[in-house]
Amino acid sequence: MPVNLPLPRREELFPVAGVELGWAEAGIRKANRKDVLVVRIADGASVGGVFTRNRFCAAPVTVCREHLAAGAGVRALVVNTGNANAGTGDTGLKAARTTCDALAKLLGCRADQVLPFSTGVIMEPLPVDRLVAGLPAAIDTLGPDHWLEAAEAIMTTDTQPKAVSRRVDIAGQTITVTGIAKGAGMIQPNMATMLGFIATDAAVGHDTLEDMVRYVADRSFNAVTVDGDTSTNDCALVLASGASRAPAIGREGPAFDAFRGALAEAARRLADMLVRDGEGVTRIAEVRVEGARTEEEADLIARTVAESPLVKTALHGGDPNWGRILAAVGRAGTPLDVGRVSIWIGDVHVAEKGAAREYDEGTAAAAMREDPVRLRIRLEEGSASGWRWTSDLSRGYVDINAHYRS
Amino acid sequence: MPVNLPLPRREELFPVAGVELGWAEAGIRKANRKDVLVVRIADGASVGGVFTRNRFCAAPVTVCREHLAAGAGVRALVVNTGNANAGTGDTGLKAARTTCDALAKLLGCRADQVLPFSTGVIMEPLPVDRLVAGLPAAIDTLGPDHWLEAAEAIMTTDTQPKAVSRRVDIAGQTITVTGIAKGAGMIQPNMATMLGFIATDAAVGHDTLEDMVRYVADRSFNAVTVDGDTSTNDCALVLASGASRAPAIGREGPAFDAFRGALAEAARRLADMLVRDGEGVTRIAEVRVEGARTEEEADLIARTVAESPLVKTALHGGDPNWGRILAAVGRAGTPLDVGRVSIWIGDVHVAEKGAAREYDEGTAAAAMREDPVRLRIRLEEGSASGWRWTSDLSRGYVDINAHYRS
Repeated sequence: MPVNLPLPRREELFPVAGVELGWAEAGIRKANRKDVLVVRIADGASVGGVFTRNRFCAAPVTVCREHLAAGAGVRALVVNTGNANAGTGDTGLKAARTTCDALAKLLGCRADQVLPFSTGVIMEPLPVDRLVAGLPAAIDTLGPDHWLEAAEAIMTTDTQPKAVSRRVDIAGQTITVTGIAKGAGMIQPNMATMLGFIATDAAVGHDTLEDMVRYVADRSFNAVTVDGDTSTNDCALVLASGASRAPAIGREGPAFDAFRGALAEAARRLADMLVRDGEGVTRIAEVRVEGARTEEEADLIARTVAESPLVKTALHGGDPNWGRILAAVGRAGTPLDVGRVSIWIGDVHVAEKGAAREYDEGTAAAAMREDPVRLRIRLEEGSASGWRWTSDLSRGYVDINAHYRS
Repeated sequence: MPVNLPLPRREELFPVAGVELGWAEAGIRKANRKDVLVVRIADGASVGGVFTRNRFCAAPVTVCREHLAAGAGVRALVVNTGNANAGTGDTGLKAARTTCDALAKLLGCRADQVLPFSTGVIMEPLPVDRLVAGLPAAIDTLGPDHWLEAAEAIMTTDTQPKAVSRRVDIAGQTITVTGIAKGAGMIQPNMATMLGFIATDAAVGHDTLEDMVRYVADRSFNAVTVDGDTSTNDCALVLASGASRAPAIGREGPAFDAFRGALAEAARRLADMLVRDGEGVTRIAEVRVEGARTEEEADLIARTVAESPLVKTALHGGDPNWGRILAAVGRAGTPLDVGRVSIWIGDVHVAEKGAAREYDEGTAAAAMREDPVRLRIRLEEGSASGWRWTSDLSRGYVDINAHYRS
C-alpha cells in the first residue's frame, strides 16, 4: 500500500507538443500486461540524461550512452518491463541493438536515434523476438494523450502508475512539463530500477539541458534513492521538443529560472511518488542536515542517517529514538564535534549539544507519525546543508525481497 | 533463536592466572539479573584495546581512553549492562569517574587503574548510585572460575552467554586464552554494543599487545560488525597477566605466531558467536573477495555485499540471487571491470565474466541453506583478498528494532 499517494488523473496530465506515446502487451514476462512503451519525438529535440553509476550497468544503458554520444539526435525511446537485460553480456548488447534497429525501421529514423531502456528481472536473456514483435502494436497506439498508459507500461513492482504535469508561462507562452517514473523498490542501495522520463515543449540547447538534468536529478531522484544511482539500469531522461512558441531558454535569466523550477518541481514530485510507493513502505521521512562544513559532508551525513537500518526500523515503530540518529551522524565519517549537535523530530527539539533535552515524549511520538516525518540535524560546523528522503524498514520489505524471484 | 550456537560449557572455560571475576545484581535496569561484572587483574598486566571510532562515543569510552593514556597500568574492569551511559554529557562522564573511584577504593588501587564499560539503553542517565552499591557484592564473588557468570553478566539482547577458551604450548609451558563477548545486535551499522574481553596469562609487552589486538580485531570482531566499530560503546580488550611460567612473547618468531594464532582463534570464535546470536538472524554467510588490487578494496567490496539489504533478504529467502551480489560489487565504488567478475555460491560457479553461467538451480539453492553460506567473489584485478561475515535480514530484525525501547 503506497503512503498518501493519489492515483494520477488523466485530465491533469498535459500533452507535450512533439511527443507521442504508444504501448503494447508483448508478453515479455507475463501475458495481458502493458510491457512495452514507445515514445516518438519530433525532429530537433534536445535530450539530457543521467545514468546509473554502477560499474555493472545493463546492456541498454551501454547502448543509450553510445547513441547519445553519436550525436545524431533522439527520435524515439523504447522501454520494456519484465526483463532488465542486465548481466547478459554480448547477447544482451546485441538484443538492445536489435530492438533499436527494428524500431528505427518502423519509424523511418536511424538506429542510433533510438534509446533503449529495460527493467525487470536481471540475468535472464531478453526475449528480443517478442519485444520486436510488439513494436508495431505500440506504434499503432502512438498519441500525445497517452501519458497515463505510458506510466502504466513502465511499472514493475510499483503498485500504481506515477505521472505528473506542470505548466509555466514564459514570455507570455505556456510551456508544459510532463513526466512519468517507475519505482525504486526501496530507499536503499537497491537493484530496483528507477526510470524517469520527463518531456517538455520548451526549446533548450543540448548543453543547457544536460546541466539542468544533473542539477534537477541531484535534488530529486538522487535524493530519494539514497545510495542513488546504483541499480544496473537507473536512468532519468529529459526531452525538450522545442515545439512550444516560447523563445529558447538561455543559460541563465528569469526564463531559465522559471523553466528549471518547473522541471525540478515535476522531478521532485515524481521522486516523492517513488518513495511513497516503495516496497513495504509505511512511513516517509525527510532527513535534513544543516550547519555542515560542505554540501558533500551534509549530504554524506543525511545519507548515513537515511540509510541506517536502526533509524529506519525506529521510523517503522514510530519510536522517536534520536539516539540512533545521533549515532548515525557520529559514524558518517565526517569530522564534527558531536557535543554541538542538535536534533529535532518535527518541531520537537529532542537533543542539544549532543545530549538529551527535556521534551514531551508524547509530542515527539506524535511527530513520528506525521507525513512526512521531519528529522532535522543541526551541526555547528559551517553553513552547508543537505537532505534525503527515506522510508521505514518494515516486515513487508523483507517479505517482498526475500522471495522476489519466486 | 541463535543459529548453531551451543551453550558454552563451564568445564571448557579455563581460568587465567592473575584474573578473577565477580558479578552483582545491582538492579541497573531490571531486578534479579546479573548486570555488573568486576574483573580484578594482578599487578603488572599488559592491556591492549580497540574502541569505537564513532565520533559520538559514550562516557565510559572516553574515560577508558584517558585511563589507558595515563599509563598507570590496569588493575580492574567494571562493566554494567542495562544502561550505556551514552549521550549523557558531563553528567555521564562524572558517573563513569565516580564508578572507577568507588571500585578503586574497594580494591585498593588508583582510580585511573580501573577501566569502565557500559552497555544498554542510551540517552538515559546511568543510575550510578545503584551501580556503586552493587560493587561490594561483585567483589565478594571474585574468583578465577567465574567466566561463565561473567559472560552472563554482560548480556543485553543476547539470547545466550558467549565464552571461549584456547590453550597453546609455548616453550613447554601452557598458555591460556579465555574470553567473553556480548552481542552486536545485527551485522549492520548498529547501536548494539559489541564488547569483547579476552584474558591470557602470557607475558606480552604493552606495544606488542596493542599491535596484536588491532591485528586480531580486524580479523574477527571488525569482520563481523561490518560497518564495524560504529556503536557508541564498542570495545575489544585483551589483558595479559604474565602469570604463566612461559617466557615473554617477543615481537616476532614462533612463540609470537603461536600465541597470536591462539588469540585470533579465540577472537574469531567469539565474533562468530556474535553473528550467530544476532537479532532476528536465521542464516549466516561468509563473503569472500579475491583477486582485488588491494586489501582495502577487497574489504570495501566484501562489506558492500555483506551490508546490502537485498543480498541479506535474498539470504533470508534462501534465494541464490547472485545478480544482487554482482550489483553490490558494481556499486562498491572501487575501479574494476565487471566483465571479469566470477561468483560462487558454495561450490556452485554461478557467474563468470560478469554474466550468468549454466548451473543447476537446485544445487545453488541447496548451497544457500548451508551453514555458513559461502559467497565467493573473484575479481581479476590483482591478488588481494578480504572477507566479512554477515547474516540475513529477517522480519525478526524489524520486529526487534522497531520496538526496542518499549
